[in-house]
Amino acid sequence: MNRPLRGIVGYPITPFTDRGSVDDRLLGDIVEGMVKAGVHAIAPLGSAGVMPYLTDSEREAVAETVLERVAGRVPTLVGVSSLTTERTAYFARHAEKLGASSVMIIPMSYWKLTEKEVFGHFDAVAKAISIPIVVYNNPATAGIDLSPDLIAKLLQIPNITMVKESTGDVNRMQRFVQLCGEDVAFYNGSNPLALAAFMAGARGWCTAAAQVIPKLNIELFDAVERGDLKSARKSFYRQLPFLQFIVAHGLPRSISAALELMGTRVGPLRAPLLPLDREKVDELRRILVDLEVLPRA
Amino acid sequence: MNRPLRGIVGYPITPFTDRGSVDDRLLGDIVEGMVKAGVHAIAPLGSAGVMPYLTDSEREAVAETVLERVAGRVPTLVGVSSLTTERTAYFARHAEKLGASSVMIIPMSYWKLTEKEVFGHFDAVAKAISIPIVVYNNPATAGIDLSPDLIAKLLQIPNITMVKESTGDVNRMQRFVQLCGEDVAFYNGSNPLALAAFMAGARGWCTAAAQVIPKLNIELFDAVERGDLKSARKSFYRQLPFLQFIVAHGLPRSISAALELMGTRVGPLRAPLLPLDREKVDELRRILVDLEVLPRA
Amino acid sequence: MNRPLRGIVGYPITPFTDRGSVDDRLLGDIVEGMVKAGVHAIAPLGSAGVMPYLTDSEREAVAETVLERVAGRVPTLVGVSSLTTERTAYFARHAEKLGASSVMIIPMSYWKLTEKEVFGHFDAVAKAISIPIVVYNNPATAGIDLSPDLIAKLLQIPNITMVKESTGDVNRMQRFVQLCGEDVAFYNGSNPLALAAFMAGARGWCTAAAQVIPKLNIELFDAVERGDLKSARKSFYRQLPFLQFIVAHGLPRSISAALELMGTRVGPLRAPLLPLDREKVDELRRILVDLEVLPRA
Amino acid sequence: MNRPLRGIVGYPITPFTDRGSVDDRLLGDIVEGMVKAGVHAIAPLGSAGVMPYLTDSEREAVAETVLERVAGRVPTLVGVSSLTTERTAYFARHAEKLGASSVMIIPMSYWKLTEKEVFGHFDAVAKAISIPIVVYNNPATAGIDLSPDLIAKLLQIPNITMVKESTGDVNRMQRFVQLCGEDVAFYNGSNPLALAAFMAGARGWCTAAAQVIPKLNIELFDAVERGDLKSARKSFYRQLPFLQFIVAHGLPRSISAALELMGTRVGPLRAPLLPLDREKVDELRRILVDLEVLPRA
Repeated sequence: MNRPLRGIVGYPITPFTDRGSVDDRLLGDIVEGMVKAGVHAIAPLGSAGVMPYLTDSEREAVAETVLERVAGRVPTLVGVSSLTTERTAYFARHAEKLGASSVMIIPMSYWKLTEKEVFGHFDAVAKAISIPIVVYNNPATAGIDLSPDLIAKLLQIPNITMVKESTGDVNRMQRFVQLCGEDVAFYNGSNPLALAAFMAGARGWCTAAAQVIPKLNIELFDAVERGDLKSARKSFYRQLPFLQFIVAHGLPRSISAALELMGTRVGPLRAPLLPLDREKVDELRRILVDLEVLPRA
Repeated sequence: MNRPLRGIVGYPITPFTDRGSVDDRLLGDIVEGMVKAGVHAIAPLGSAGVMPYLTDSEREAVAETVLERVAGRVPTLVGVSSLTTERTAYFARHAEKLGASSVMIIPMSYWKLTEKEVFGHFDAVAKAISIPIVVYNNPATAGIDLSPDLIAKLLQIPNITMVKESTGDVNRMQRFVQLCGEDVAFYNGSNPLALAAFMAGARGWCTAAAQVIPKLNIELFDAVERGDLKSARKSFYRQLPFLQFIVAHGLPRSISAALELMGTRVGPLRAPLLPLDREKVDELRRILVDLEVLPRA
Repeated sequence: MNRPLRGIVGYPITPFTDRGSVDDRLLGDIVEGMVKAGVHAIAPLGSAGVMPYLTDSEREAVAETVLERVAGRVPTLVGVSSLTTERTAYFARHAEKLGASSVMIIPMSYWKLTEKEVFGHFDAVAKAISIPIVVYNNPATAGIDLSPDLIAKLLQIPNITMVKESTGDVNRMQRFVQLCGEDVAFYNGSNPLALAAFMAGARGWCTAAAQVIPKLNIELFDAVERGDLKSARKSFYRQLPFLQFIVAHGLPRSISAALELMGTRVGPLRAPLLPLDREKVDELRRILVDLEVLPRA
Repeated sequence: MNRPLRGIVGYPITPFTDRGSVDDRLLGDIVEGMVKAGVHAIAPLGSAGVMPYLTDSEREAVAETVLERVAGRVPTLVGVSSLTTERTAYFARHAEKLGASSVMIIPMSYWKLTEKEVFGHFDAVAKAISIPIVVYNNPATAGIDLSPDLIAKLLQIPNITMVKESTGDVNRMQRFVQLCGEDVAFYNGSNPLALAAFMAGARGWCTAAAQVIPKLNIELFDAVERGDLKSARKSFYRQLPFLQFIVAHGLPRSISAALELMGTRVGPLRAPLLPLDREKVDELRRILVDLEVLPRA
């Protein structure tokens, strides 16, 4: 990763077998599909990958499976978050040993962390490894919101070099550019803001959609890259219903259902998560038919 | 207004004399400045124009002054909102008689209106006039939020043909395009989202900034029009600090202070509104110096 | 008002004739009903009285009608709020001339007022009159929230002596007591918190319910006064469904419907406000039957 | 627990040794102190006990230590929450085996759970054990909010018999009483609402304050029990500053600091949590001096 990462960062779900264990083979196939489709980076153990619902050994196994399958063809960003600093550093070191390009950390919280605690947490993990860290801000799942100013401060720690912003607030993204300069490596994690974020200067788009509609995701990125505003807008509005759907119904539920509709047997979600209701699956099918991902019945 | 309005819609403040009455002459000059600078439409009696703080006769006089000065050179959108339906219809008819191109209505509320009440309010006013109506949504000032679905419904009333959206939520704008088609006439009223809104498909940008930095506002619009993404982004980030400032400190206070800094004696605000604090004025001066609106000291 | 006001403060609606003008006679009867029932004070031109929807001359006429009818039998709190300081002072002076015991002011806002502007607004009006002022905080209708600290500061202005708090946040009320001492004259305006507010130390309960169920309102107050916790709780839970209903559906709509159900011809609401839907009226009837205000069909 | 639990439920923190392992001996002493002081029940592994920051084996050890020390003298409520249903059921069975009176479950979430998922989660755990379950609602830490209607539905599962409500919304508590009858076993977890909650009908108060000021907590409960409103209010306002402090700064940080001030060497918090800042400790000392928990210097 000497050159800064740009483009589509694909987030695989973690599929399970009928007996409830991680389905390594299918996970590898999902990753392979994204790499072959031209996705620019792979990020296992994200929110889509239900990382917090996995045991410690499952987390390690998922990282191994994905890194092995990617085999250095594209950069990898491995999720290593944990409530405690000690466990976060542990998983970060494990990912580094496996050859991850970088690790991604969301400051999970039960007790709201103070700014000092957040800084201490990132600083301690940063010192435990040599590879770059992506600061991931997503108050909806983490229960804590990192201000642009705090993120700018975290970016001064030597190996904290990237930000993934999922608040869905364009003003936030614009603040990063103002605070850190237009070369700040920020990545958008809010699917329905994909176009607006690229306009604001995002280098990349972190999305679980990439395991279902990678061509469309890449098409949008490419249109922005060559400054073709009209094509970018057209591509964006085309895929927007799918992006809105997966955000409204949760990535693990929605992406699993989409893969099932496309013929991949994904297996059950981990309880308490339940599969999408039948009527929602029908709605999703119509969206995928419109996108020509599924054939018209 | 046979051709749909596109571009920069300038919102003049309402300046007062030292004795507290509306300064008609200065108001006319401010409007003249915007028209001469190439602003595409003029909207008197908006939030910037402190419409709710004016007496009924002052409101009528402001509309007359502005329409007379514009003299048909560009379209006009006259604010006619009132808490009661009867007064709103009254001001709408008055604006129509004066020759306004259209009227703009925000559903002011003290008691939260039901959807049925909002619809009835707009419908009654629409029936009272023949010129087009702009639905204006701004929960921060109105105390009521119109959902994209309700706005889509209002747009089915024959002479309700435009929407001004000021929630600052890009997802809202995208919903309009999805609900009403890409030809929907929606205008952005959230200054710091000017770029994102144009990308989402906004036809215009409603802004009080146009009486201070009209050239920059028009430059951004023009760059988007010719699909020059790079210039659009550059122009946007250049003017963003000014846009953020006027939103953070309120349009009447901020624009008045900017005009004073540029040499125009604006007069007092109407109480309880107070002028900007000295330190905020200094901050504003620095922003205007950076924009080369003011000379470096 | 040498002795501090305690108890139930009744808020009459403003009834209209079929032709849309204020129904003075009925307004007087509603007020008379409350005074006869033992309500401890009367507050015309509150939110229930749709004060912001009235013309200036209607506001003056309503104040006159109510003060004349009360005729000094109980204290009066007259609503005199306006967006501008000048008009607020005007109505305050008018109320004082008519013999009001005190005036009530909510800092209405279109542009969010700064703390300095709020203070200046109250201070200017306080200087214009000699009778006491009640600071009324209700962000849901005013669009601006007064912090307990700001209210404590306002209470240092000599003739600002009371607070009506309608945020529905018990913590706020407890803050007043902590900031200003247990003798602070705070009144609760959140109907479903009537019991909790009295426990926190509220001196009174401002309620439009008093024109429908005055006996129940007074019964609750009396139980708290004599420290009879069990009776207070019982009385409170009995009237709670009615209190929840009028808050959920808006005071003018709900109270008008209740009076109609009880046989009083109230007349239309002022547009854009519409009467309660039929099914809501049925729900209200059932609640009033349970309270034995209406006979079981 | 044939008779329903009433009164003060004490929540011990989980103290650590300097080497970062759980300090079993001190934990036992803290529990002993509460039981001796007359606290009516003990709840290990709550939010105060930093349950989510403990490893699985630490959680089991804490439950064992506390249950052993309580030795049946008062009822126990053991926290057994986990993100997955499987682990929650595991810890619930473990607590039952150890002899816990009941278990307490907060529906932790990373992905927002649907109502169906929440119900399935509780139902599955309820079927795995025979002892009663307390539904714990605290959106601030759980990231998910259980509506009163959903909680009423959960209370229909046979061994789900109690609710702990920590939203700090009195209206919520009143809804429980309305939905489930005045005999509903609801417990308040919002410290600054202790008085309001008892008035609304709460059977008990779940508080970490009980390991610092048990006498004051019990004094308030007793005053309410004997219907002595005046003493209840006096006792409540006396302890309110301490309650506000521990809520504002987080229970683990605040309670640890309080115990240290009182002479108990508590040990470090588990990272990323940090001890209270020095100035906050000084503020806490002043509060404890005012409560005569600490001697005036």
